[in-house]
Amino acid sequence: MRLRNLQDKDVLLEQCEYLIRDLNTAGKWKQIFGNDNQVHIEIGMGKGDFIYHMAQEFPNINFVGIEKYSGVIARAIKKYPDSLPNLRIVNFDAIDLEKLFKNEVETIYLNFSDPWPKKRHARRRLTSKDFLVVYDKVFKDKRRIVMKTDNLVLFASSLVSLSEYGYTLKDVNLDLANSDYFNIPTEYETKFINQGVKINYLVAEKEDK
Amino acid sequence: MRLRNLQDKDVLLEQCEYLIRDLNTAGKWKQIFGNDNQVHIEIGMGKGDFIYHMAQEFPNINFVGIEKYSGVIARAIKKYPDSLPNLRIVNFDAIDLEKLFKNEVETIYLNFSDPWPKKRHARRRLTSKDFLVVYDKVFKDKRRIVMKTDNLVLFASSLVSLSEYGYTLKDVNLDLANSDYFNIPTEYETKFINQGVKINYLVAEKEDK
Repeated sequence: MRLRNLQDKDVLLEQCEYLIRDLNTAGKWKQIFGNDNQVHIEIGMGKGDFIYHMAQEFPNINFVGIEKYSGVIARAIKKYPDSLPNLRIVNFDAIDLEKLFKNEVETIYLNFSDPWPKKRHARRRLTSKDFLVVYDKVFKDKRRIVMKTDNLVLFASSLVSLSEYGYTLKDVNLDLANSDYFNIPTEYETKFINQGVKINYLVAEKEDK
Repeated sequence: MRLRNLQDKDVLLEQCEYLIRDLNTAGKWKQIFGNDNQVHIEIGMGKGDFIYHMAQEFPNINFVGIEKYSGVIARAIKKYPDSLPNLRIVNFDAIDLEKLFKNEVETIYLNFSDPWPKKRHARRRLTSKDFLVVYDKVFKDKRRIVMKTDNLVLFASSLVSLSEYGYTLKDVNLDLANSDYFNIPTEYETKFINQGVKINYLVAEKEDK
């Protein structure tokens, strides 16, 4: 998601209390949060609706939001200025995720990721094998990916990619907004739902590591 | 699919040259077809559009269409009166499939199966564990299920059920009619496509047996 630069972007990033600036974090998340709670991360947190509300809803889980674009993270900070004890955010590119985490993550959330719909860009999708290999290094023991998207190409290719990599689908829903599932919508998702677009959802797990 | 009885139903069933009447067929399909070719079956063949055209398109594969309702099979016979050397049909209930085949089937097609959308009827879906156990006995070595449906509840539950039973998803498409896939539509499917309903498609395989 690209946004026009906020004029006060640098100030927002400098003053934010829950933005991680020292990226030497691998192996140190217990220390950062000051407890042994599970760590769940969202790759591509956008303007933060999902991760912020998840952190409010589940105070006994530690959440880390990751976002590649500093302009987007600035908007999240502007929208959610207050810190939460169980929330941190990082301005970082997911392909280098193993530099941020070392066998520390319990769940990865992928919400409305860039679909890269063209076949020649398939490796850039956040559920391609290239990324699943990276995720192996950040997961603690059991791997768990929770994904939502409106994009049918991304969702179909994710089902195949996860399955071929050895993940088992524990849950799939092809119309999340019209189901009775607990769901915290992202900012994109709310728009899509209002347009009548169906939201696809999956939970995939892999036990052995 | 229930239909009003055709007046000439019994005559159609009696005279059809490619309807199997002696159901003592397990282990005998090489003999029935007179060759060693692969055997592919469709469970719930309906009025036969899919299985008949598949048999025409792939003369080196043997096809068996299975349909529970005799009135429906009579309609297929009326629509497709001519025999094909690589096609047989059987009036039979899929839950007893192991009585018809013994380690002889390469592919099972499930097209627009009854979705049984209520949770309490989930075991009746043709991809529930109850049926996957039966299919194990009819498959030759590698198991392969190819499925199409418009129904989101059936498709989602099939993805999970197949995955949890150890199948790997080799292909998924969530808008088959608007893709470049080779596809022989069923009679239902043609109606759905004309209404703009999206067709979901999967190929699932399990190697070891």
